[in-house]
Amino acid sequence: MTLKVYLSGEIHTDWREQIVAGAKGLDVAFDGPVTDHAASDDCGVAILGNEPDKYWHDHKGAMVNAIRTRKGIADADVVVVRFGDKYKQWNAAFDAGMAAAMGKSLIVLQPPEHDHALKEVDAAALAVARTPDQVVQILRYVLTGALPS
Amino acid sequence: MTLKVYLSGEIHTDWREQIVAGAKGLDVAFDGPVTDHAASDDCGVAILGNEPDKYWHDHKGAMVNAIRTRKGIADADVVVVRFGDKYKQWNAAFDAGMAAAMGKSLIVLQPPEHDHALKEVDAAALAVARTPDQVVQILRYVLTGALPS
Amino acid sequence: MTLKVYLSGEIHTDWREQIVAGAKGLDVAFDGPVTDHAASDDCGVAILGNEPDKYWHDHKGAMVNAIRTRKGIADADVVVVRFGDKYKQWNAAFDAGMAAAMGKSLIVLQPPEHDHALKEVDAAALAVARTPDQVVQILRYVLTGALPS
Amino acid sequence: MTLKVYLSGEIHTDWREQIVAGAKGLDVAFDGPVTDHAASDDCGVAILGNEPDKYWHDHKGAMVNAIRTRKGIADADVVVVRFGDKYKQWNAAFDAGMAAAMGKSLIVLQPPEHDHALKEVDAAALAVARTPDQVVQILRYVLTGALPS
Amino acid sequence: MTLKVYLSGEIHTDWREQIVAGAKGLDVAFDGPVTDHAASDDCGVAILGNEPDKYWHDHKGAMVNAIRTRKGIADADVVVVRFGDKYKQWNAAFDAGMAAAMGKSLIVLQPPEHDHALKEVDAAALAVARTPDQVVQILRYVLTGALPS
Amino acid sequence: MTLKVYLSGEIHTDWREQIVAGAKGLDVAFDGPVTDHAASDDCGVAILGNEPDKYWHDHKGAMVNAIRTRKGIADADVVVVRFGDKYKQWNAAFDAGMAAAMGKSLIVLQPPEHDHALKEVDAAALAVARTPDQVVQILRYVLTGALPS
Amino acid sequence: MTLKVYLSGEIHTDWREQIVAGAKGLDVAFDGPVTDHAASDDCGVAILGNEPDKYWHDHKGAMVNAIRTRKGIADADVVVVRFGDKYKQWNAAFDAGMAAAMGKSLIVLQPPEHDHALKEVDAAALAVARTPDQVVQILRYVLTGALPS
Amino acid sequence: MTLKVYLSGEIHTDWREQIVAGAKGLDVAFDGPVTDHAASDDCGVAILGNEPDKYWHDHKGAMVNAIRTRKGIADADVVVVRFGDKYKQWNAAFDAGMAAAMGKSLIVLQPPEHDHALKEVDAAALAVARTPDQVVQILRYVLTGALPS
Repeated sequence: MTLKVYLSGEIHTDWREQIVAGAKGLDVAFDGPVTDHAASDDCGVAILGNEPDKYWHDHKGAMVNAIRTRKGIADADVVVVRFGDKYKQWNAAFDAGMAAAMGKSLIVLQPPEHDHALKEVDAAALAVARTPDQVVQILRYVLTGALPS
Repeated sequence: MTLKVYLSGEIHTDWREQIVAGAKGLDVAFDGPVTDHAASDDCGVAILGNEPDKYWHDHKGAMVNAIRTRKGIADADVVVVRFGDKYKQWNAAFDAGMAAAMGKSLIVLQPPEHDHALKEVDAAALAVARTPDQVVQILRYVLTGALPS
Repeated sequence: MTLKVYLSGEIHTDWREQIVAGAKGLDVAFDGPVTDHAASDDCGVAILGNEPDKYWHDHKGAMVNAIRTRKGIADADVVVVRFGDKYKQWNAAFDAGMAAAMGKSLIVLQPPEHDHALKEVDAAALAVARTPDQVVQILRYVLTGALPS
Repeated sequence: MTLKVYLSGEIHTDWREQIVAGAKGLDVAFDGPVTDHAASDDCGVAILGNEPDKYWHDHKGAMVNAIRTRKGIADADVVVVRFGDKYKQWNAAFDAGMAAAMGKSLIVLQPPEHDHALKEVDAAALAVARTPDQVVQILRYVLTGALPS
Repeated sequence: MTLKVYLSGEIHTDWREQIVAGAKGLDVAFDGPVTDHAASDDCGVAILGNEPDKYWHDHKGAMVNAIRTRKGIADADVVVVRFGDKYKQWNAAFDAGMAAAMGKSLIVLQPPEHDHALKEVDAAALAVARTPDQVVQILRYVLTGALPS
Repeated sequence: MTLKVYLSGEIHTDWREQIVAGAKGLDVAFDGPVTDHAASDDCGVAILGNEPDKYWHDHKGAMVNAIRTRKGIADADVVVVRFGDKYKQWNAAFDAGMAAAMGKSLIVLQPPEHDHALKEVDAAALAVARTPDQVVQILRYVLTGALPS
Repeated sequence: MTLKVYLSGEIHTDWREQIVAGAKGLDVAFDGPVTDHAASDDCGVAILGNEPDKYWHDHKGAMVNAIRTRKGIADADVVVVRFGDKYKQWNAAFDAGMAAAMGKSLIVLQPPEHDHALKEVDAAALAVARTPDQVVQILRYVLTGALPS
Repeated sequence: MTLKVYLSGEIHTDWREQIVAGAKGLDVAFDGPVTDHAASDDCGVAILGNEPDKYWHDHKGAMVNAIRTRKGIADADVVVVRFGDKYKQWNAAFDAGMAAAMGKSLIVLQPPEHDHALKEVDAAALAVARTPDQVVQILRYVLTGALPS
């Protein structure tokens, strides 16, 4: 069993790298969005031409990014969605909603102070983790049955 | 043609009432979540028994509310998601993600200052409105072909 | 919003009648299996001819009953599955599995002593109720927003 | 043709090993739940933190296990569900219901004394086997056309 | 519960009329193909213009008939397929295959001499009836729980 | 049986009115796009605000119109797509593609000079009609079995 | 592009071997039912135990065979259904109906004398071939664009 | 992540070759229709026999081509649809409609003079490109996150 895992959400800390490193040796195929913030914001106009209106600038970029994120979520068995301390992170919650509607196994990775604000998202999840290492432990258990000693 | 419209998101202003009032006379069936904030927070423990741990208190409530919101979204032709000025509103973005994945027509109702933060959500929408009246005008046009004079 | 509710499981106590009576006045359409135990067991051979082998006797009946139960579950918004004190009740757990796979809102109605044995079923549910009255309260809240006083 | 087979249900005897050994040489990929009973019961709290309430202890574990079992069933062509002599085994019947709703080919493995109690589950199955060896023979016939001599 | 029943297959005897008459008073909505054999054969060319080649004559008619039959089967809860003594009746078996793939409850109505030839179709059915009256009894039981006295 | 029929395509002649008038007395519910060309082109900016760039002007309008057309096609049993003599009519072919992918019964209404250019669209249709009256005759036959005398 | 092709229907002539031989060198993966007639008839009782009643003897076998045929059809891109001169061949038409409902590309292989009886099946097909060699030519063209010289 | 990309539409210029060459080194699997115009027009009659009526000549060919195009679109993650300067190109718009209904990521490749005529198609797209090189840049960004320098 290969587990396809999509890592969605916050792109300002190294949580993805921690999970990928921790899962070394496990039969997991990771995927996720483009995490270069500037490229992600500007990809639309950089490729398809400038927009004087910031709204359409953003729109073109969000559409191009959707080519990648929708395939990533659609192909995944497990979608991990990370909520951090900053920003609105509505795209993370949006990805969680798509994952839930598609019947994916959803793992939310978030600090306890967001518990109340995330209760609807958490209610659709199969696990709410606090640390990247807990996500790794879940993946290891799911694939091998081994628990942390 | 009866249009089934689900009104998701912010529950602290009267935007739902404005839309329902404005759409009077149109063949629209509106639905939405329970908008009594206290009842919505406490429904789980009020019905199914207390939880000493706030996390499970929230969880039980979010699950009971999901019975209503999931049916409302699943039955809808159009899902309007309102983002306001306060709170994290991750449940609104989560509903938008579910609506998008289910192929619903999505209308986002939000002030311009959130354009950048909502660009991924807006990219999945068929309209981004600034006022409840614009939502009403869209519904009227969709149902009757009449534009605002 | 009319809520279509399928009442699955145990057929030896009057829990269905309690729920239907308690929900009087609410916009709920109830459905469920044939609850006449003898008719349910014998319907296959009574209509389609005797079987000397008990296995096929049972099989013919289970198939005819499936015409009703599959439609009932497929049409439902909410599936309530009741586990009682007696018998194996595998058909109840089977219905719960079908309901979960079809994305129905699942409410499990069961005494606490079965918590451990039902943990996988409960994990797929949006509510675990102990009494028929709690089920009624959930339906009332979902439809009207009113909590028990 | 590779046949993906999920082995669900009873985890206290070696029926899985018998089937896997018997199917040696056939193009079958087997999958199944974590069969270490203690790990399966405790995985939730071992990874995600203790729960003083046994209900939530169980709940967290059942949710984590669902990551594995739902993928296993969703990926399978054939789901074999084994019912043994002990325990309630509602999770086995629940898996059978999910498999049936997803259109999987269902094989039930059970002793004759459970025929009546399992008639609804059996009615959704393509085969009811009494021994692990019969399951192997079915897999061999399906893949190669060879019958037991 | 209204049961939508599609009556497919043989069009040379009055089995449909017998079932409709027998089901009088039950909450059943019947549908079926055009049973005027000549109209059914010629509808394509009569409406859309002559074809010198008999193959295309037949083809145009079969396509127009498919508008009706596909909707009828798609809308149905129960599909009854009747096999009689004459002709190839491949369209009946084709309808049964469509109904099975769509998850409809299938009832086959056929004389015992066709049991062997129909074994694959019967294997997908929830009931194999010998007389129109047995079909009526099934519908009555499914809707009311009443068995023939 | 009520037949839901969506009338897609060309909006410059009265072919829709002819079909609706001809189908008077039949159990048909018609739907279609907004056929006021100016309103259809400008609805986006008229409701949601001006766009200096013609591309986004068009885009906003096409998105608002999609709220209506996607529901109309999704709800339909039969989609009639009319190709006329003028313009590119790519939206008509696009609607036909959506209808085909959704398994709708497709009727193409087109003059013979477009046969070659429309061969891929026609290959997905159940009927290719030349006149609105032929469409009416198909609807009458499908609903009543009556052929034109 | 690998084309998965399921070869359904008549099992008394060597048409499958002709197609497989003719398609040598093409990127096609063939599948089909067990074509050993005796094994196919008796597999149920040979593995799962005798049945004194011929109906259940047939039934058990048809169910076991369905494990293979349903996977074969579900996995296929193209389903070729061969109708020969003898027997009722209702299982072939049933497979064609399943394939059509699942949106598979259907090729019917049949002699002209069955054109009228097969018109409903042919109306769901993308090609009606008369010889195995024509099926090979279609597969070659679909994969390589090469036509017979 | 391998991206499966279907290249639909205009077959008279070398835009496909440009994209394939530009994407060299990227993990992309390209597919598309048969682009030999004569073979594509005549495949039906060349394989399955002559038709005196041009309509059926075209029809047979379009059906055989559909075996390839439907699989290509169904298997794709991304469908690129190219509209050129000549012909009606209704098959291109039809493919775009199918792709949209199937939830594929749609990229439209078209000159600005067609913006108004293509506004409904563009409204379903995630990107509207003007040159094959822009399509390559999108694919590169989606797969690697790299933008054109």
